[in-house]
Order: sequence, then C-alpha cells, then structure tokens
Amino acid sequence: MSPARVGVVGASGYAGAELMRLLSSHPGADVVFASGSSSAGQKIADLYPSLSGVFPDLRLRQHQDLPTGLDAVFLALPHGASQKLVRSIDSPALIDLGADFRFTDVATYEDWYGGAHQAPDLNESFAYGLVELFRDEIARANAVSVPGCYPTASVLTMAPLLAAELVEPSSVVVNAISGVSGAGRDPKPTTIFGAVAENVAAYAVSAHRHTPEMEEILGRLAVQDVSLIFTPHLAPMNRGILATCYMRPTGSETEEDLLDAMATAYKGEHFVSVTEGLPSTKATQGSNSIHMTVRKDQRTGWVVAIGALDNLGKGAAGQAVQCANVMLGLEETTGLATTGVYP
Amino acid sequence: MSPARVGVVGASGYAGAELMRLLSSHPGADVVFASGSSSAGQKIADLYPSLSGVFPDLRLRQHQDLPTGLDAVFLALPHGASQKLVRSIDSPALIDLGADFRFTDVATYEDWYGGAHQAPDLNESFAYGLVELFRDEIARANAVSVPGCYPTASVLTMAPLLAAELVEPSSVVVNAISGVSGAGRDPKPTTIFGAVAENVAAYAVSAHRHTPEMEEILGRLAVQDVSLIFTPHLAPMNRGILATCYMRPTGSETEEDLLDAMATAYKGEHFVSVTEGLPSTKATQGSNSIHMTVRKDQRTGWVVAIGALDNLGKGAAGQAVQCANVMLGLEETTGLATTGVYP
Amino acid sequence: MSPARVGVVGASGYAGAELMRLLSSHPGADVVFASGSSSAGQKIADLYPSLSGVFPDLRLRQHQDLPTGLDAVFLALPHGASQKLVRSIDSPALIDLGADFRFTDVATYEDWYGGAHQAPDLNESFAYGLVELFRDEIARANAVSVPGCYPTASVLTMAPLLAAELVEPSSVVVNAISGVSGAGRDPKPTTIFGAVAENVAAYAVSAHRHTPEMEEILGRLAVQDVSLIFTPHLAPMNRGILATCYMRPTGSETEEDLLDAMATAYKGEHFVSVTEGLPSTKATQGSNSIHMTVRKDQRTGWVVAIGALDNLGKGAAGQAVQCANVMLGLEETTGLATTGVYP
Amino acid sequence: MSPARVGVVGASGYAGAELMRLLSSHPGADVVFASGSSSAGQKIADLYPSLSGVFPDLRLRQHQDLPTGLDAVFLALPHGASQKLVRSIDSPALIDLGADFRFTDVATYEDWYGGAHQAPDLNESFAYGLVELFRDEIARANAVSVPGCYPTASVLTMAPLLAAELVEPSSVVVNAISGVSGAGRDPKPTTIFGAVAENVAAYAVSAHRHTPEMEEILGRLAVQDVSLIFTPHLAPMNRGILATCYMRPTGSETEEDLLDAMATAYKGEHFVSVTEGLPSTKATQGSNSIHMTVRKDQRTGWVVAIGALDNLGKGAAGQAVQCANVMLGLEETTGLATTGVYP
Repeated sequence: MSPARVGVVGASGYAGAELMRLLSSHPGADVVFASGSSSAGQKIADLYPSLSGVFPDLRLRQHQDLPTGLDAVFLALPHGASQKLVRSIDSPALIDLGADFRFTDVATYEDWYGGAHQAPDLNESFAYGLVELFRDEIARANAVSVPGCYPTASVLTMAPLLAAELVEPSSVVVNAISGVSGAGRDPKPTTIFGAVAENVAAYAVSAHRHTPEMEEILGRLAVQDVSLIFTPHLAPMNRGILATCYMRPTGSETEEDLLDAMATAYKGEHFVSVTEGLPSTKATQGSNSIHMTVRKDQRTGWVVAIGALDNLGKGAAGQAVQCANVMLGLEETTGLATTGVYP
Repeated sequence: MSPARVGVVGASGYAGAELMRLLSSHPGADVVFASGSSSAGQKIADLYPSLSGVFPDLRLRQHQDLPTGLDAVFLALPHGASQKLVRSIDSPALIDLGADFRFTDVATYEDWYGGAHQAPDLNESFAYGLVELFRDEIARANAVSVPGCYPTASVLTMAPLLAAELVEPSSVVVNAISGVSGAGRDPKPTTIFGAVAENVAAYAVSAHRHTPEMEEILGRLAVQDVSLIFTPHLAPMNRGILATCYMRPTGSETEEDLLDAMATAYKGEHFVSVTEGLPSTKATQGSNSIHMTVRKDQRTGWVVAIGALDNLGKGAAGQAVQCANVMLGLEETTGLATTGVYP
Repeated sequence: MSPARVGVVGASGYAGAELMRLLSSHPGADVVFASGSSSAGQKIADLYPSLSGVFPDLRLRQHQDLPTGLDAVFLALPHGASQKLVRSIDSPALIDLGADFRFTDVATYEDWYGGAHQAPDLNESFAYGLVELFRDEIARANAVSVPGCYPTASVLTMAPLLAAELVEPSSVVVNAISGVSGAGRDPKPTTIFGAVAENVAAYAVSAHRHTPEMEEILGRLAVQDVSLIFTPHLAPMNRGILATCYMRPTGSETEEDLLDAMATAYKGEHFVSVTEGLPSTKATQGSNSIHMTVRKDQRTGWVVAIGALDNLGKGAAGQAVQCANVMLGLEETTGLATTGVYP
Repeated sequence: MSPARVGVVGASGYAGAELMRLLSSHPGADVVFASGSSSAGQKIADLYPSLSGVFPDLRLRQHQDLPTGLDAVFLALPHGASQKLVRSIDSPALIDLGADFRFTDVATYEDWYGGAHQAPDLNESFAYGLVELFRDEIARANAVSVPGCYPTASVLTMAPLLAAELVEPSSVVVNAISGVSGAGRDPKPTTIFGAVAENVAAYAVSAHRHTPEMEEILGRLAVQDVSLIFTPHLAPMNRGILATCYMRPTGSETEEDLLDAMATAYKGEHFVSVTEGLPSTKATQGSNSIHMTVRKDQRTGWVVAIGALDNLGKGAAGQAVQCANVMLGLEETTGLATTGVYP
C-alpha cells in the first residue's frame, strides 16, 4: 500500500512542527504539503533545525494552497481559524487540533471562545478524538476534533472512576501543571526564559477554556452533569502536563478497588500505563503515552487521580496521528512512540 | 550596641547555608560558630563557594562544640535531632528550624514523625514562629519553632479567610508545588538533575508530614477543627513554593470582599504582599516575602487562595532570622530582603 | 548624611530593574525617579512583582522627565540612547550602563555599533568603570561608562596575567557562556523558554561587539596590542557568565606562579575571589562578586584562566552601584552583596 | 528475516536505558536480555517509568547471566568492566560503549585510565565506531568500540578540515559544553539539581580522558600528530554536547571554502547536517544526528568549527545502534531518529 498523502496546515507552530516530526518517520504517511501563515515561503528547517535532516528543502506554503484530494489533512491553527477553512477542504480524513469543533453544543464554544461560530452546521460531523474512549466513532468519522491538552490528561484520568460512578460528579477539583510549550511559539512576555525559568505560577484561574470541554466530555461519560473547577499552572519545562484531580467518593471502595477499576478500563490500551507509582511527566516526554494512578486519602476520604502526558504528544500531535491512523485503517500505533525520551 | 553573637548548628544543609548567607550581611549579628555533622572540619567556602567572599576560612565544627552563652542559636537539623540537643543549649534565643517542637500535642509529632519524643517537657516552651500571626508570643519566648515551608505558605495564605469564618474549615484542598531545594542537599536518585529537570510529579500523596502542622495551626486560628488534604508536587526549580488552596465559602462574600479581608489582615506587614495579580514564586526568590491573592470561582463557588514564597527564605532561614530579630529586640526587618532576585 | 537622591533612566529592562532592587535596600541612596520608554505610566511593581514590597506605587516616568540636580543618575538604555541624552543631564555622578562611552576612540564605537556618534566631545570625560582596575580615575570622574558584561568577566580574569607579561597578547581565545538575561527582557524568538531550555548554542561568532572593548582595555593594561577571538554562547539559565580564556605563556611560570600573580593582583579586593577550585556562575548569583582561577596545561602549554560572575550583578547593575559608591565617596561595598544566592 | 536477538549488559545507566528505548522500537531487534549490577532483580520499568509501556515486566539480570549465541551484545558499563567481560562473550556483533578498547595503543589507555589492561590481546580486534569515518572497518568487524561523547562531537566536526590539511594539527582548542546526563545516573553532589540548575562551570580542565582519544583519531585522519587542549563544561540541561573547536588555518581558504569542504565530506550522510546557521544542541535532542558548521574570523584568522549532538544519542546509544545496524547488515538508519524532539 502506498503511503497516505497528507497535508499539515499550520506547520510552523509547536503542534504543527511536532506533527511534521512524527509524520517524517511515519511509514504510512507522506507529507506533501505544509503551510504557515506568517512564515510562508520560509524553509521549515530554518524555523526548526531539528527537522533539517528530513525536510532540508521543504518550504512552508500559504494555507490556501492546500491541494484537494489528499488522503488526510491536519489543521494545527489558532482557535477560530478552522471553522473558516473546513468547508474548502476536500479530504476523507480531516483532523483538527483546534477548539472549533470540540463541543456538542456550538453555544458552549461561543460562550467560552467568543464570536459567532462560522460553521455550526458542520459541528456534528466531527468526532471527539479521544481514541481510548471514542474509538468507534473516530473510525467512522471523516472529521475529528482533537481534544485540548488539559482535557486529554484529566478526562482520561478521571473517566474510569466517573463512568463507574465511583466518585461524585460534583465537587471535582482539577489542579494541573503544564510545561510552557502549551503557550505556543510566539514570543510573549510571559513565555520568555527569564519569566519562566525558576518560576511557578497559576494562570487563567476560573477562566481557562478547557474547563467546559472537561465538563462536557466527563458529563457524557458519567451520564449526568459534571461540575468542576480547573486551575492550570505553568512550570519551567518544555513539555508535559500533570493533572491532579480531586473527587469525593460515592461509596467505600478502597484504593485498590479504584486502581483496579482504572486498570480494567484501560486493559489492552497501548498508550495508557496505569501504575502503582506516582506518574511523572518526564516519563512520557516525546511519546504518545499517558501514565496515571489513583489514591484514596484515608483521613479525609478524598480520591486523588493523577495523570501525566506530553502536551505536544498525547495532548496534541501524537493523539492527532493516532486518530488519523484509526481513520485511515492503519495500525493504531504506527509512527508513534510509546517510550519517553529520558532523561 | 555590639552585634549579637550567634551560632548556626547544621550550617552545611541548604537552610543552614541560607542562614549563613543572611547572617553574613546582618548588621546586628556576628556568626561565631557554625557546625556540620558529616562535614565537620571542612571550610564552609568549599561546600558553598557562594560564601567564599565572606567566610573564606571558617571551618565547620562538631555540633557538640557549640559554646554556651551565645546571644542566639539556630538549629537547622533533620527532624529528631533538636530534641536531643536542646537541653544542652544555653542561650536566651533558640531558633529551631526542624519539626521537633512545632506541635502543641507531642503525640501528633510522634504519630507523624515516629518514635518517642526525647524532650516532651520542653515542648510547650516553644512559640510557633509565624511572626505575622504570633508576634507577641515570639517576642516573649526564649525558644521558637520555625514552621515548615509548606505550612508557612498555606497557613499564611488561608489564615485571614479561616479566622474570619469566610470559608469552611473542612473540605480544604491544598495543592502545592515546590522547588527541589526543599528535598535537601544530600544526593538522592530523586533529586539529581536528570530526574528533576523537565519533570513535574506529585509525591508523598496523603502522607506528607506538613499536613498535621497545617491542620493544627489553622485550627487554632479558626477556633475549630480544620480538615484538609495536602498534595505536594516537585517542579524543576531551585527555590519556591506555590500553594493553591481550595475552600468552600461560608457565605456570599464576593471576590472583592475576600481580597479585602486578606489585605486588611496583613495591613502594615512588611513581608506580605497581597496582590490583585496572581503570585509567582520567582518574585520572592532570595527574599523573606510572601505574595498572595484570592479568587472566587463564580461557576462553582470555590474560593481559591494562592500564596508564593521562597522555601529557603520566608519558608525557612529568612523566617528564622525574622524570629530572631523579634526575640532579640532588633528591628524585625534587619538583614532581610523584601525584594526577589529577578529574573 | 542624608541619602543621595538618585534617578534610574531605563528602569524597565533587566539591568534597570536590578538597579532598582539594589538601590531599594541601599542605605546611602534614595530612588526619586525611574523611567521607562515603552512602559512609562505603568507601576514598576506590575512589571516586576519582585519589587512590589519596596515600590508598591512607584510609576515609571518618561526619560525626559528626569529632574536636574540629582546626586546620581544611572542610565540603563540600549546602545545609542545615552549619547543623545547625556548633554541634558545635570548631575555630579552620571553612570552609564550602555556602550556609548566605553571606547577611548570614538571611531571604534562607530565601526562596531554603527552610525555617527552624537556626543564625541564628551567621550573623554567618561572613566571606564572597572573599579578594581581604574578606581582612582572613577573616584575623580563625574561620568563613568560601565563595562559590558563579557568584558567585565574576561578582562578582570586575564588582566593580572597580561599586565605582568606572563602571557602573550596575541592568540587569545575567549570562549564565554552566558545566561539569557543578557539578551534583555524584550520577547524574541531566540529568548523564549522553548528556544532556550535544554539548549546550548554559540551566537554572534566573530561578530560580538564586546570584542573590541576587551581588546582595547586589555591592550591598555598590557601596554601593547591585544588580539583575541571571542565566542559567546547561550546556556539555559537566567544569570551568569563564565569566561574561559586561553592564552599562550611567555615564559616557564608554573600554575602556582600564575595563580599567585592573580591572587596578588586582587589582594584586598572585596568582590574578587581567586580560588583554587574551578569557579561556577551560581556561586555569584545575585551578588557583585567575581570568582576566578587559572590553570596551566602541562601537555600543551596553554594557560587557561576562568572567571565567573553574575551578568546583571558585577556585570552590570552591581558594578554600576559600586562605581556610584566610589564617585559619591561612600564605602565601596555599600548595598552590594558579596555572597551568591545558592542554590 | 526474524529480528536479531540482542542483549544489553548495563541497562540501568543512562546510556543503557537509551539503548533499551531505541531497541524497543527497532524493527530488526528483539531485546532478550538486560542486566544491571546493583539493580539486578528490579524491573527496568521501576527504574525508568518511561519504559513501562514497552517493558512492563522485564527484570534486570546479573551481567554473568548473559546467554551465549545472541546476534548482538551491547556493553554499557563503566570503564574497566568490559575488558574483564569480553572474553566470555560469544556473539558475532559486540558493541562496547565503554572506553576500554578505544585506543590503538593500550598504553595510552593505561596512562589515562589507570591500571593494567586485562585484555590487551583483544584490543586490535575492535573497530572504532565512528560510522561516517570508519564504515568499512565496522562492517567487517565482530567487535566495535563506540567513541566517547565528546570525541564524537569534536572529531566529526574537525575531521574534514584536518584530513584536507586546511587547518594546523597543533594549537587546537576544543571548548565543549555538555548536559548533565554525561555524568551518569548515580547521585553525586555535583549532579543534584541544586548544583546544576542555574549554573555553568568548567570541569576536569586539562585532565579529561577524552583528550587522548580525540588526539589519536584526529591524528589518524590528519596523518600526523595532533595536539589539542580540551576543556569540558557542564550546562544545566539533560542532554546535548556543543563542541566549539578553534584551529589555525594552513592557507587562505575562505569561510565558504571551509564550509564546502565540510559539506562535501559528509555528502549523503543521513545523520550529518552541515548548516550555514549555528548549530544548537536542542535540534538534535533524542536523535542520532549531528549538526555542524564552520566559520572563519576575518580579524584574527581563527577557524571555528562547531558541532552539536545528543550525548546519549549520536554520542552513545544512537551511534551504538548505528554500528550494530552496519555490523548486522541492516539498513544503517533502522530504528534511529533523524529529527530532534523540539522544543
């Protein structure tokens, strides 16, 4: 079988460049198009010398130069951009890494992201790209919306407990810590080394747009409303998200019971490691894996589920490739690392 | 007035070395003794070249060589060590940075730290060294137990809200992130650069010994039992603690009300900055300051109080010097930086 | 004696903010003016929360609002800006941290920095602010040009060897490694965390503007032309410069002879530590100190002198305050730390 | 063709674990044995959670349990260990990552590493594993000695210039900067986060054991004696080596001439990128690539060649796998990444 001809729209950002890295060694894919808006005309190897060995001469194009008829198209664009582009894209496998088509109800998108959605009629054609939970829908879909990095970490980590009604769907506290690549490649006062190194701070308290995404997907799994507070923090590292999720138990299950439920839910999943030890982001660096565990505090009863992943891997580009593999009928693990680059 | 003659027992660890740094430029103190157990005989400047300009020739002594009659003695030792030493120390100002005398009830210490306490009769002679909350007790005391780094951050941050009954004393979640110096200077598999850099992980979930300390002191301030879960995390930085504290509100106070309560409580405090912006650990690096704020999540009602400090500064050695200043009748701010070293 | 009334023109950059930090606790100085061009009108505490405890309400002014008659004025501006401003400044102590007045020959400045100098007539009124080497000139001067960070590190380190003719003035290789604060606070693609963390690279090879400054000052000390190649590198840290300087020996002096020459040259200097061990940047973090040593390679004969300092401390703001102290007749060490913040 | 059955002796160190990571996704290799001395009996996934997805249950064995008849055996042991083991190993492809068999003359090894070599008779059976330079010898050999990390970086970078006699073989200065993984996984005072983060320092000045290795291999290529001084530095990052190499030119070749010579020498090499831009270590992170360039300083004549690689990748485990591929007759690039993990 000849490799799928794929395009990457938005290859100049971190998620796009990670797609380029993964696809460059993907045996079932051939990148025939890559675009960047402000960097159109430049060599991708000049923006990312890390790609110089595989794409020494490839120049970024304008988004609108995307050819028709590609086997798969990845969109790695700021929110709001996909909704304007999708109608013009003709491909049996469209994988959108942005937020535009992540919500069942377009109104939720509009509330949290602002402005009237430009393609509300197309919204329901998108499957939600959390492969471990929605594999069949993804396999049937022609379009997939890849989850946000924080929702990927926290939803996968809490899903087995909420779906089995082992924890209450209210009073959920999600406290997450992220590396800085989540803030993108554009230079900002908050992302320069001097502001980030030797620093930890919370940001977007009560206001992060991944909150409603978590609530919606977890609510779908719990089959009832989920209410949670989400507090993201920035830590001085390139990649990684650690989600520490606090929930009240519904019954008297022990820590072992909870851990069993988690392990059972993900039995056979290639990219999920349920561990007795506490997960660390570094173990997942550069991979498509998520590591997770759960603890129960004897004194206070709180259930604490903790998940770790690479925000650009499983949290973005890795998961996008995993979706594409499923959509294209390839082996799901093709071109994706299970092991983290350590140290 | 001639400078106080002070001794530092345990000068070879990070907290001890920070004491040496602070005391070296303290106009009211003269370090006449410094000891280290395993490094006795070595020059402190060989262990800490950062001190070579001020202590080029000072050699560490054995703990037991501590002279009597010093104006102040600092103990910066592993837990369990102070309780064996204190009886032999003759000084009007004893400042213990360890955990041995932090609890009102010796049994709590024994439960969490293990073993029978060696000096239970001396326990009540120690004041708890959180100057902003217990200044008068400290001024009257001959012995002070300096709070742990996490309790300093979280207790100071939550105290105004709990004391004013603006938040519930149960269902408290303290999620904290620390730099690695909190784990000490002894090389461990978990503290080598390769394990820490580009990594975030939780540790000691449900089991950290600072938990009962927070509960006791906050309970004293709230005048009722406080129950909390505490989850510490390690981030790749040298110094700093960020405590993100979740509490349920008791009434309908607004975010502004809560912030006012916090600001009012610390009005006039030199080392406390109550800010509208979100605090960052880096702003406090190398200083004795704590920065804090509070938010109320409109959607879920959660109150989120966030505090940041330098775990070796306000969280250990800085606070210890602040206590000593109060005990010795010096200006409380003497020898202590209010500004952080930035970037 | 009442504190000197000082102004800081350009307080919003890293060097300017470090001046604000140092001056805030300087017993002989009172900051009565601070300006920032693009951030005029903003509170300095909003730009630098690290300063919120000492300057909670101080707002940055426009440069041109600088009052006359101040006891001392610091200029911390991009190169080219000072030469336009100096004529309008009326103060007995002008300390310029920029490059405009660092060269004896204005033509050298123009060659390396470009454009015609706007105040060539004032050039010779500036002393070169390397206190340990030009203390008397600085004490007599009304204007001082503070050396660049790299020249401070490398000139101080090599000066004793070149001045004593122990090494050849040609074939000098200066290989230096700097933290990122040297690149300033403006967000740039090259200074974001994602570009800097986990990365080391050379930059400005053969083209760095500090090259002629090193050659000129070293030439003045060696009383003959000095020719050197300088290669700066960027390392993932906030502060610090390590200069590794390779020179050919003129005679058969041993390593001990060279180390003695270095130690003798700086005997009694408060901020210079000549050490047998290899210097590390971290030992000088936040201080005005420079640590240095020298080695002789038995096999090849190369002399290797290595110096470490904090580029914002001794390499910029610290040294500027040291100069001001000398100019104002204060104790030279006033308000300056000798110890590094460690770890 | 069924995958080669391979063993990894010394899988618990960083280089060994990197071998495990690379081999886990190598389509032509199947790891059937892994050993660790002090960690025998433990699961590799407990030491390296990054490997939990691929080796969930594999336990480390004792070195002596290595079965005979494996298709390939990797030794990743401290220097001195291989020479005692090799005689007992029966495999057509032995790849030693240690220093024991890197020198043509056993006496050089003994001078720099100490002690009498235990297997001098086997020394000449080892090829030197720098594939780009000694591919044919490696293909013919049953045993290969993988170069040190620093020699890999500096020899590959300087080889084209020395071999073509474009630079002098004397007066070579190699100034290199390394990440901390080069110091191994054993906790040491010098490798804890507190000692490394925010720090740069030189180490082993004039005394690093990679010096004679560089001299020997470069001398072989230059067909005359090469004399160089080598100064390694430690920077706060996990992986990466940047070698900045200063040489005197033999003639009047321009920078373009030199760059052409370098590019021509490596034309067609999959893992070598000769670039006009300055190489950065991060572009090679996690890969088997080396990036390099060369500059000529117009003012002083110095030729500066700069090379960057991942010390655990091309500098150790990556190169070892590349050697094994050549020895086993596999495609040389099998299982090896060309792209760096960025950011």
